[in-house]
Amino acid sequence: MTSPATPVRIALVGSGRIGQVHAASIHRSEGAVLQVVADPFVAGAQSVVERFGGPSTRATTDAVEAITAADVDAVVVASPTSTHVDLIAACLDAGRPVLCEKPIDLDIARVDGLRERAAASSVPVALGFNRRFDPHFAELHRRVAAGEIGPLEQLTITSRDPAPAPEDYIAVSGGIFRDMTIHDFDTARWFVPDVVAVTAVGLRQFSEVIAKHDDYDGAVVTLVGASGQSVTITNSRHCAAGYDQRLEATGPLGTLSVGNVTDTLVRSSTGTSGDSGAPFQTFFLERYAQAYAAELEAFLAAVRGGELSGPGFEDGRAALVLADAAGVSAREGRTVRVDLSA
Amino acid sequence: MTSPATPVRIALVGSGRIGQVHAASIHRSEGAVLQVVADPFVAGAQSVVERFGGPSTRATTDAVEAITAADVDAVVVASPTSTHVDLIAACLDAGRPVLCEKPIDLDIARVDGLRERAAASSVPVALGFNRRFDPHFAELHRRVAAGEIGPLEQLTITSRDPAPAPEDYIAVSGGIFRDMTIHDFDTARWFVPDVVAVTAVGLRQFSEVIAKHDDYDGAVVTLVGASGQSVTITNSRHCAAGYDQRLEATGPLGTLSVGNVTDTLVRSSTGTSGDSGAPFQTFFLERYAQAYAAELEAFLAAVRGGELSGPGFEDGRAALVLADAAGVSAREGRTVRVDLSA
Amino acid sequence: MTSPATPVRIALVGSGRIGQVHAASIHRSEGAVLQVVADPFVAGAQSVVERFGGPSTRATTDAVEAITAADVDAVVVASPTSTHVDLIAACLDAGRPVLCEKPIDLDIARVDGLRERAAASSVPVALGFNRRFDPHFAELHRRVAAGEIGPLEQLTITSRDPAPAPEDYIAVSGGIFRDMTIHDFDTARWFVPDVVAVTAVGLRQFSEVIAKHDDYDGAVVTLVGASGQSVTITNSRHCAAGYDQRLEATGPLGTLSVGNVTDTLVRSSTGTSGDSGAPFQTFFLERYAQAYAAELEAFLAAVRGGELSGPGFEDGRAALVLADAAGVSAREGRTVRVDLSA
Amino acid sequence: MTSPATPVRIALVGSGRIGQVHAASIHRSEGAVLQVVADPFVAGAQSVVERFGGPSTRATTDAVEAITAADVDAVVVASPTSTHVDLIAACLDAGRPVLCEKPIDLDIARVDGLRERAAASSVPVALGFNRRFDPHFAELHRRVAAGEIGPLEQLTITSRDPAPAPEDYIAVSGGIFRDMTIHDFDTARWFVPDVVAVTAVGLRQFSEVIAKHDDYDGAVVTLVGASGQSVTITNSRHCAAGYDQRLEATGPLGTLSVGNVTDTLVRSSTGTSGDSGAPFQTFFLERYAQAYAAELEAFLAAVRGGELSGPGFEDGRAALVLADAAGVSAREGRTVRVDLSA
Repeated sequence: MTSPATPVRIALVGSGRIGQVHAASIHRSEGAVLQVVADPFVAGAQSVVERFGGPSTRATTDAVEAITAADVDAVVVASPTSTHVDLIAACLDAGRPVLCEKPIDLDIARVDGLRERAAASSVPVALGFNRRFDPHFAELHRRVAAGEIGPLEQLTITSRDPAPAPEDYIAVSGGIFRDMTIHDFDTARWFVPDVVAVTAVGLRQFSEVIAKHDDYDGAVVTLVGASGQSVTITNSRHCAAGYDQRLEATGPLGTLSVGNVTDTLVRSSTGTSGDSGAPFQTFFLERYAQAYAAELEAFLAAVRGGELSGPGFEDGRAALVLADAAGVSAREGRTVRVDLSA
Repeated sequence: MTSPATPVRIALVGSGRIGQVHAASIHRSEGAVLQVVADPFVAGAQSVVERFGGPSTRATTDAVEAITAADVDAVVVASPTSTHVDLIAACLDAGRPVLCEKPIDLDIARVDGLRERAAASSVPVALGFNRRFDPHFAELHRRVAAGEIGPLEQLTITSRDPAPAPEDYIAVSGGIFRDMTIHDFDTARWFVPDVVAVTAVGLRQFSEVIAKHDDYDGAVVTLVGASGQSVTITNSRHCAAGYDQRLEATGPLGTLSVGNVTDTLVRSSTGTSGDSGAPFQTFFLERYAQAYAAELEAFLAAVRGGELSGPGFEDGRAALVLADAAGVSAREGRTVRVDLSA
Repeated sequence: MTSPATPVRIALVGSGRIGQVHAASIHRSEGAVLQVVADPFVAGAQSVVERFGGPSTRATTDAVEAITAADVDAVVVASPTSTHVDLIAACLDAGRPVLCEKPIDLDIARVDGLRERAAASSVPVALGFNRRFDPHFAELHRRVAAGEIGPLEQLTITSRDPAPAPEDYIAVSGGIFRDMTIHDFDTARWFVPDVVAVTAVGLRQFSEVIAKHDDYDGAVVTLVGASGQSVTITNSRHCAAGYDQRLEATGPLGTLSVGNVTDTLVRSSTGTSGDSGAPFQTFFLERYAQAYAAELEAFLAAVRGGELSGPGFEDGRAALVLADAAGVSAREGRTVRVDLSA
Repeated sequence: MTSPATPVRIALVGSGRIGQVHAASIHRSEGAVLQVVADPFVAGAQSVVERFGGPSTRATTDAVEAITAADVDAVVVASPTSTHVDLIAACLDAGRPVLCEKPIDLDIARVDGLRERAAASSVPVALGFNRRFDPHFAELHRRVAAGEIGPLEQLTITSRDPAPAPEDYIAVSGGIFRDMTIHDFDTARWFVPDVVAVTAVGLRQFSEVIAKHDDYDGAVVTLVGASGQSVTITNSRHCAAGYDQRLEATGPLGTLSVGNVTDTLVRSSTGTSGDSGAPFQTFFLERYAQAYAAELEAFLAAVRGGELSGPGFEDGRAALVLADAAGVSAREGRTVRVDLSA
């Protein structure tokens, strides 16, 4: 599509927190330029243009105009979840490769409404599941795929946010499984694509606000794959030490694990404690900074005509199917069987 | 009962592997002597007498004679599971404090048949759940109890055996939940005594032998406590790196964890790897060597009239109730609610 | 000098390996632009211009022309050591702040010949001792300065290169103390500015090539500060596991340490080893990547009129004095006293 | 001498702190019994008899009587340093294998006075350098000897006491090199027997009491072996985090290291710190508990006619020669060459 020598011209839709992350990645990349930033809140778009754009970058309030502009090669969607389906559809129509933030939608019916068109199209649709691009997790995945521990038997995902989102976010988040665990469902499927059973236990441990919205502030989910592999996910909406993001894979030949990232290697030994490290990195902007950059590069490679190496539309759909199944399982206290290929 | 100056005279019932562990603990303790060893296989009893006894230690084939002997102060039961209920009953009758290996029995009905008498008796009945006496786990428990992480929210127990037991053992083991997970159920109740719900997923990952016996070679169990605490147990009947025994407790103020024990502190850095430690300690005899000694000392303190600080009959029963509930949950794919006080 | 809003226009002298590191830092910095690249080997300069410059960046063979150009605000010197004194002098004459790679020169007489002018000038002269800008070492230094371990008593510096430089570099390097240990002398003075005694032991352990040039392939140096603090430096010109760069500071209240940086957090546990990490990062370009960027930012702050927070001319001179003293100490087998203020 | 089945009957000379350590080891060993305890302070001897002896163990004030008693097979000397030479001599005369605490004497002339007789005698003389029996250090040594890192190039010994001894001990200790560093000199020679040069820097960092006795409260010593190996020893008479005992060996193929031992594996992660371990074990009784037991077993093997596997008289002498050379080096500021075979 574009040669490596010509930077890919990106339309960014959405100038909020995650939009700014993508804008910064585009700015730093040698293979992309920020061509246009679309946001109904035009001052936000303009601010992003000023910080991360070049002399010819423009702001607009009209996402579809940005997507279809003649000087745009590809699109990054970082707008509210409810707009994702329509924006992906617009990209498919315009033939613009799109990297869309997760989730595709909170409603599986709306996702399924787009599914056939996405499958039929040759336009790359990339989903922003950042864990797959974390260098540590990716290295662990690579070593599992290389057979270092034999066939995977047990995967353990620990995923705790540092603190709950504000109530107005909780209210529209779609619940812990579709909002937070959805990342872990995708991580699970990265290792075990063919999940067949979901058993979820929802927890109410500390937040009356979250309980008020009929949501859980923690969860334990057990997935089983077609070959009998297990995946255990432990979630909490708070964690004193920071953003707790760990992964452990066990097979007949051994265990591979990735612990938390800390900002400093300084260790101390005193009369009352020893080897006292730092808390974990605060939250996703720090922890997955490298991942966002790698995610963009993988997308740019697909834009240039290569294979889409990261998660795509079907992965986004599968994660939502698992999230919905987890919701049913937690509410009804029973294992829910799923068929992701259906 | 006996003063600290006078060693407690112990009758040991059972001279197999675990019986020998207890005999060695008794030998090394300043507060106990091995008075008699009972085993129908008298050569085994005699061998234990020779290795761990003194000049006046004797062997017998008759467990009840050993329990009731006038020169015996207390009893350690390390015979096959099916004999435990009768031997505990004999100890209660004879007024002999008893430390019995887990489980009390594989059949909850038999346990319940003894329950009232055990509750009514002032004779200490201690159960050999060794995890509670491991110095690392006990230190973690002490710090949780001291409030260091605030009220416990999530407990994670990883428990993998190095390799499956032989088939003839599997055949009579009572299944993974009553044989292996039962230790983890007791660990769970050490932190969360009032478990109210059990959700178990049984796994068949590698062993046709175990599957043939309609048993699981791995499991993931999620318990929920009355205050909403969660406990996640991950089991496997094999583990390449050794005996995988870890514990992690999280509350609103932080996380406390205990990793695996290795035999050596030597670390290496070479051109292909760095900080390469040793595999975990092989199995329970090594990993819980200190625990067995501490378990005996706690029992001796109770024999001398102190409070029984470790797990007792009701704890042994509760672990079995949870194991049975896990079996139902795994088979039926549903959460099973339990009332441990019933 | 220049306002934060206006990027500092940099003349880079030298387009070799370390020159390219600085060019990349300038490219990524929001506060600097690469204005001109000077190198007698003009193709090298042009290549750097293409990779890291903008539309108006130019290449030249004439360093002095670059330094004195009207559209240049500051200079980065990354040319061969023998040119440093003259180039710094040219910068002082032209009133251009300069960041010069270490060492100032191999000959203390030449350094002293420039000393008075440098001291009299208000033009910032920054020395490229990158350790001071490493975020881990800097955090350790900050905590020592904050009094966390009380007054520093013992500093331990481990510094091993992955492999010796080629023979033609060894031949002109000035010897291990002036070429390699000089970084550690500066690290020592960062913590203990007033070194009063140098005791060095030169080692010949593995390299006949290095021995042929009458140089050492390893060294142990002990410095003592005016308040009795000790600094121990262990050097080797090779290290199987990579670039071994560690720091440990001990005072009456505790110890702070920084270990090696590895590329991945993946750890493994298998039947023959546990917790097997990766080798250390390969060499200085990787290990001190963040340091080079921070070094540039500290220089830019001084260019803009702030205080020079990093090492300056006197620090460059002091490190060379210590290197020369170490050479005498190692050759003569005696402690050499120094007066860095003389 | 004695068969494995018959316990070795030990005369223990000295009932102080270190004498009690040996008495406890003898008590726990299956291969030894405490036959007699000698101490001019007879109440001390009697107390040790009561705690660690059997029915036939006796106390005496007469060391020579104990050594020569017909019912004694071997001797452990744990009395004050000034008595060691005479007691070893008495053991040689009586043909009693002896395990003597370090150092042999503070005066090399007295040691040399016994040297010829010790060399000519077939009676085993074992020296109590406990580091050689520490399982972690011994494992590191075994792996170095097995060639894992290639020929040893650089050995780093860190050895810090938790707190200085009382002044009356300091006054008679013989100085830091003969009292404290002597252990590290023996560790050095364990890896590099043929030390040829000693360069020592004495430190006065915190203790006016120690300075008053013309002694150092810290030291850095660099040894060089005949093949060019270096050994760096860092000492301090205090350490906030406990007893700092570390070892690191580097060769062309890699590095092996042993860090400090802590009592607990519990790690914590909170909002202000992560992975906060425990302080190091307090002092030598805890840190080297296993070593004292292994040291006794190695001695017992020699008593029974096997090879003396641990350090002997010549090792005790060599450590003192190095200590004296370090004293000269530190006082005179020069490297001192030594010939340990002379």
